[in-house]
Amino acid sequence: MLRSHYCGQVNETLVGQTVSVCGWVHRRRDHGGVIFIDLRDREGLLQCVFDPDAVEAFGAADKLRSEYVVQITGRVRPRPAGTENANLGSGKIELLGKEVTLLNKAETPPFHPDDETVGEETRLKYRYIDLRRPQMQKNLRLRHEVVKRIRNFMDAKGFVDVETPILTRATPEGARDYLVPSRTHPGSFFALPQSPQLFKQLLMMSGLDRYYQIARCFRDEDLRADRQPEFTQLDVETSFLSQAEIMAIIEELVKYLFLDVLGVDLGTLPHMSYEEAMRRYGSDKPDLRNPLELVDVKDLLNDVDFKVFAGPANDPKCRVTALRVPGGAKLPRSKIDAYTEFVKLYGAKGLAYIVVNEWSSKGRDGLQSPIVKNIHDRGLAGVIERTGAQDGDLIFFGADKSQVVSDALGALRLKLGNDLGLTEKGWKALWVVDWPMFEWDEREGGRWVSPHHPFTAPKQFDAQAIRNNPGEIVSQGYDIVLNGIELGGGSVRIHSSEVQQAVFDLLGITPDEQQEKFGFLLEALSYGAPPHGGLAIGIDRMIMLMAGGSSIREVIAFPKTQTAHDPLTNAPGAVDAKQLRELHVRSTVTAPAA
Amino acid sequence: MLRSHYCGQVNETLVGQTVSVCGWVHRRRDHGGVIFIDLRDREGLLQCVFDPDAVEAFGAADKLRSEYVVQITGRVRPRPAGTENANLGSGKIELLGKEVTLLNKAETPPFHPDDETVGEETRLKYRYIDLRRPQMQKNLRLRHEVVKRIRNFMDAKGFVDVETPILTRATPEGARDYLVPSRTHPGSFFALPQSPQLFKQLLMMSGLDRYYQIARCFRDEDLRADRQPEFTQLDVETSFLSQAEIMAIIEELVKYLFLDVLGVDLGTLPHMSYEEAMRRYGSDKPDLRNPLELVDVKDLLNDVDFKVFAGPANDPKCRVTALRVPGGAKLPRSKIDAYTEFVKLYGAKGLAYIVVNEWSSKGRDGLQSPIVKNIHDRGLAGVIERTGAQDGDLIFFGADKSQVVSDALGALRLKLGNDLGLTEKGWKALWVVDWPMFEWDEREGGRWVSPHHPFTAPKQFDAQAIRNNPGEIVSQGYDIVLNGIELGGGSVRIHSSEVQQAVFDLLGITPDEQQEKFGFLLEALSYGAPPHGGLAIGIDRMIMLMAGGSSIREVIAFPKTQTAHDPLTNAPGAVDAKQLRELHVRSTVTAPAA
Repeated sequence: MLRSHYCGQVNETLVGQTVSVCGWVHRRRDHGGVIFIDLRDREGLLQCVFDPDAVEAFGAADKLRSEYVVQITGRVRPRPAGTENANLGSGKIELLGKEVTLLNKAETPPFHPDDETVGEETRLKYRYIDLRRPQMQKNLRLRHEVVKRIRNFMDAKGFVDVETPILTRATPEGARDYLVPSRTHPGSFFALPQSPQLFKQLLMMSGLDRYYQIARCFRDEDLRADRQPEFTQLDVETSFLSQAEIMAIIEELVKYLFLDVLGVDLGTLPHMSYEEAMRRYGSDKPDLRNPLELVDVKDLLNDVDFKVFAGPANDPKCRVTALRVPGGAKLPRSKIDAYTEFVKLYGAKGLAYIVVNEWSSKGRDGLQSPIVKNIHDRGLAGVIERTGAQDGDLIFFGADKSQVVSDALGALRLKLGNDLGLTEKGWKALWVVDWPMFEWDEREGGRWVSPHHPFTAPKQFDAQAIRNNPGEIVSQGYDIVLNGIELGGGSVRIHSSEVQQAVFDLLGITPDEQQEKFGFLLEALSYGAPPHGGLAIGIDRMIMLMAGGSSIREVIAFPKTQTAHDPLTNAPGAVDAKQLRELHVRSTVTAPAA
Repeated sequence: MLRSHYCGQVNETLVGQTVSVCGWVHRRRDHGGVIFIDLRDREGLLQCVFDPDAVEAFGAADKLRSEYVVQITGRVRPRPAGTENANLGSGKIELLGKEVTLLNKAETPPFHPDDETVGEETRLKYRYIDLRRPQMQKNLRLRHEVVKRIRNFMDAKGFVDVETPILTRATPEGARDYLVPSRTHPGSFFALPQSPQLFKQLLMMSGLDRYYQIARCFRDEDLRADRQPEFTQLDVETSFLSQAEIMAIIEELVKYLFLDVLGVDLGTLPHMSYEEAMRRYGSDKPDLRNPLELVDVKDLLNDVDFKVFAGPANDPKCRVTALRVPGGAKLPRSKIDAYTEFVKLYGAKGLAYIVVNEWSSKGRDGLQSPIVKNIHDRGLAGVIERTGAQDGDLIFFGADKSQVVSDALGALRLKLGNDLGLTEKGWKALWVVDWPMFEWDEREGGRWVSPHHPFTAPKQFDAQAIRNNPGEIVSQGYDIVLNGIELGGGSVRIHSSEVQQAVFDLLGITPDEQQEKFGFLLEALSYGAPPHGGLAIGIDRMIMLMAGGSSIREVIAFPKTQTAHDPLTNAPGAVDAKQLRELHVRSTVTAPAA
């Protein structure tokens, strides 16, 4: 046996005993003729001391360099008084080294595991060194601990862990699919699943009743900071349960995870309608730690002599909205200009504002803004009253298409919350419910789209109503949101073949396409489909939040870069022409990338 | 709440109570003016009775058909004496139906879930009906239970569950890769992993110390009965442990699973060298339930006047081997002819035999065989003594290249064991150890190959010895075998860059190829790689054995056919030319398969 203890677990209870440890040379110091080796393993550091009296061990220790892998046997003794290190579990003791066995040498590594300044491309290329960092080890083990608890929880609730295929058909989540050419079916392709959505619904039709899976999913999207080509979700589906019953199970799970792993009590999650979330926060995933709110003032400004406001105020597709910034009167003009540029990223044409200097004593003369002169007294008083603005505040305005106003002021709200330190620390979770079943997408000539996915059930299972008033149908969809980030979402599903077809029709999927893509689902719905519903939670994102990280790459062992490249293995790579021939495809690129 | 109890969990403790159940109409019988509905859910069947007195419920029940999905509320009562069903958990009671809510109708299904005679293609096309069969539900839940125990065991032993990428580089397991064209790197391809081999080794170089994963793996092979394009393995890797320590952990796990799930004690697993397994059983995965053994008789027959024996007996690449069949003298000539045809499938040119009729009293005159006349007394007596043959037995012979003899007589041994009922019931597990590091493959002009994989460590880490005597090097590989099926295998790995290169060199991988394919591994080995090793266990195959099944398709929710096709979703399928253009590939097939 090479090892009797992990380095990080050698402590004062072992004083006087002889132990063997294995690990990496983290630091080496020579001090007063003595060699100090900090040996590192996954449990932490252990200070090993080599005295010149122990000739052989001293000689061996003298040859050790950074990241060498060694076994050290020695006697545990207290550190001399005054040299204890309270930051280490092993900080009260040290190992007096008696024997050193070199297990493997190491070239000088491209960076030291302690070095936090190294660029990400280099970190990913030498990921095995990056992962030696205590923070990364902690993240991977946190992930293990959380997923373990999820599994135990789901098991205790009677959910059965079922694996669904990775080689499957294109799924209709809307993102681009990764494709896999078939060798045995020339000209045909598998798709990697964007989610196991249809398989989990089929499992309900199989009578499994409660399914879960920690499922790998794939999306060939242009990567943003928090996306990866492959990601992992907790995938859940149940039969015969109502929306409220499904949400209760998931809420219990999430609360349990945060309490058990982080000691954080999330409290009872409030429910907020999609409409309210958009209205008050300009977002379908509001960050409730941020106290700023949007206030609609359309009715107050629909007759002002100021087209920028009056136009949208009289257009049913538009919003006119105010955002009060407490203490914002102090913002310098340059800051306001910067915020104006910021909202333009979200499609806003500008950012009107009013500085509330001395409204309480001077009325409209106490306001400062290029637009005050265009707004009548009733309008000004109404805005001030409705926003609750006080002297010293500032009010921003958005007036445009509803989506643009929500996006721009919603983003501005978050930015102001951070910039001004208004957003609380801590955790605020909620459910966003009562989603519209369909939304009208102006692009591509205009068409109905599903905010969730086309298998989401309406509150009333009525195919005729779907055809007649699609814009007014509310769905049984629900999202769980934490600190302004969508942890997951789900819905009660359609279990009626007729309703499912009506939805497909409305989404502009032709009967032929329906048969080709979803024929098996429609058929399955007709052979005894139970009422069912479920949800998926983004594991990478949840662990990232729990780890206090800012990118899911910090909680994935071997992530890819933003161009979907792995600098470590250099994937994707070139392949033989023979391999491609067998798969009945040809590259359209003459000189493949290395 | 639609349901107060699962059907299969309503029992005599609930007599007198009103319960609500949901499920599928399994059977409906009309008997004496009363309607009987057997309602099915995942926990079992419940007999529901509808009396014409309860007019409304009776009317609703009257409309129910096979596989309709319903909610039934009623009062639990004892079944009339004499009508109990001891096979059902709910067999002592029935539900007097008060209320019926139809949740979903069902078309007449293509087959009844009870029907075991339906062909597999149909079962797979309507997998959601097939999965309603109690046996399939049992298999899926057995899989859940086993995997749960694996996870809990690994967690308790300090193993960290880490997800490794699915979109990665070609791995060197030797089978064909599934490829995924990259959109963002034109002309490059990801490969789906045949195993996470290199990633798990990199995790050891990351200092994780103990890794496990229930990992999806992919091989684009021509499918045999027990293969699927995607399969699942328990993937394990550890640092600083010896071969014996790794094997002990896995043996403890497997023994625990069989004991805890099946109540089967596998005992202490014997260790058998690869050489002994091949010699005695003609197989590297011997089925020890079968008492038949091969006995080498080369030295007894090297001077007989019979070229079929004498030739191989004087060739070091050949085996001359006897297989005693107790009571085999009774085998009719037609059976012996059939066995002769059987061994030809394995490359044997024929099947010599001797019937031992009355050896004890008559000596060579008591033997019956076309070849007796060609063999001297010493040879005959030696064979009979060494095989332990008794009067009434039969002895088969194999004389050919060693591999052919082992394959043919090894397979014949298994067949005879089954045909003659000699193979015991029950469970026999063992470790096969001391694998050769390299084998000489005669094909393609002859070259060295790895019986395991090129990362397997030799017993001695000596690059020079590998170059000098490759055929004599024994590896630190080990396979775990149960009832003649390879459950899994693994090895201590090479942790020296120099030894790894020597192995690559010997396997004929050019330095350029080594850099291109394994440069990152060789580099990682040079930056502080600990001694490490691990193993993988085939989950599908193990669950199949535990479920008493004969195909892994029985323990996979949505398997593919032998042409890697899913009749349910009809994957793989056609894709848009636009999608392919974005991926920089073109199909070489003009009319893609539907």
